[in-house]
Amino acid sequence: MEGSGGYRVLGIDPGLNITGYGAVEFFGPSGGGTPAIIEAGTIRTDAKADLAVRISQIYTDLREIIAEIKPDVVAVEQLYAHYAHPRTSIIMGHARGVIMLAATQASVAIRSLAATKVKKSLTGNGHAGKRQMQLAIQSVCRLDKIPEPPDVADALAIALCAGRNIHPDGF
Amino acid sequence: MEGSGGYRVLGIDPGLNITGYGAVEFFGPSGGGTPAIIEAGTIRTDAKADLAVRISQIYTDLREIIAEIKPDVVAVEQLYAHYAHPRTSIIMGHARGVIMLAATQASVAIRSLAATKVKKSLTGNGHAGKRQMQLAIQSVCRLDKIPEPPDVADALAIALCAGRNIHPDGF
Repeated sequence: MEGSGGYRVLGIDPGLNITGYGAVEFFGPSGGGTPAIIEAGTIRTDAKADLAVRISQIYTDLREIIAEIKPDVVAVEQLYAHYAHPRTSIIMGHARGVIMLAATQASVAIRSLAATKVKKSLTGNGHAGKRQMQLAIQSVCRLDKIPEPPDVADALAIALCAGRNIHPDGF
Repeated sequence: MEGSGGYRVLGIDPGLNITGYGAVEFFGPSGGGTPAIIEAGTIRTDAKADLAVRISQIYTDLREIIAEIKPDVVAVEQLYAHYAHPRTSIIMGHARGVIMLAATQASVAIRSLAATKVKKSLTGNGHAGKRQMQLAIQSVCRLDKIPEPPDVADALAIALCAGRNIHPDGF
């Protein structure tokens, strides 16, 4: 943030197996329209471990990521009850709970965004597939390659959409 | 725990508005069959606050409670997707996630129990109402009054059921 006059958004795509994260820096109107990817990656947990151990790992890793990236905003996907597997959304709720806790403890503002809104904002299609989202991120951020895995692309999409909502000129 | 030869179970009934908790100490076969209530109460959050602030409060308060009570086991209700309000179970998942985190960080074992199993274990009826549960707790723990509010009775019921599962002679 220092010197850029912009702001930094950390997007998170919560998942018990893989939580994607992606930090994007937005610049003011005079700083150019292309947001810059600061860092992106995944937090992976051991599928054989207990739920409590897995969400603890997500929490611990995310605390470190937030401390390192120092985002102005953490943006996470909203959860909906109409998933094909309702149990999945409850488990996701556990992960999302510790993600929100990590952000709150670091005094970082939180934004919740609907997945359909994020997809529509980037592709025009609220039900865009993974590949379509990866290509959209590549285009917006002017990347040489598509972002992999899709969880990272989704996290960057959430960050981009949240950043644009906060500051329409920055994107 | 010291000198009792028994073990301590902290039961938790997770809720965004009111999280009930109740700690029960179980004694060995020679220590008598009546489990003793060590402490019980509720964590209440501000309904006007953001979700992140509310679950952070549950986490912080529970960390203190665990540090004070030093349970051997934390027992929480399992969440099901077939609640009347599916959104509620997702939100509950957030609260349950930070509860599990608090227990894991304190190196306390976690047990998950189905609400129907807890109710059946204490009343013979897997769909017992709040009043019925309060009366069952009063009877098992030989209390002068019924435990109030129902969230505390439910938390004690979870602790009692978990304790009995762990050590059948202790109850």
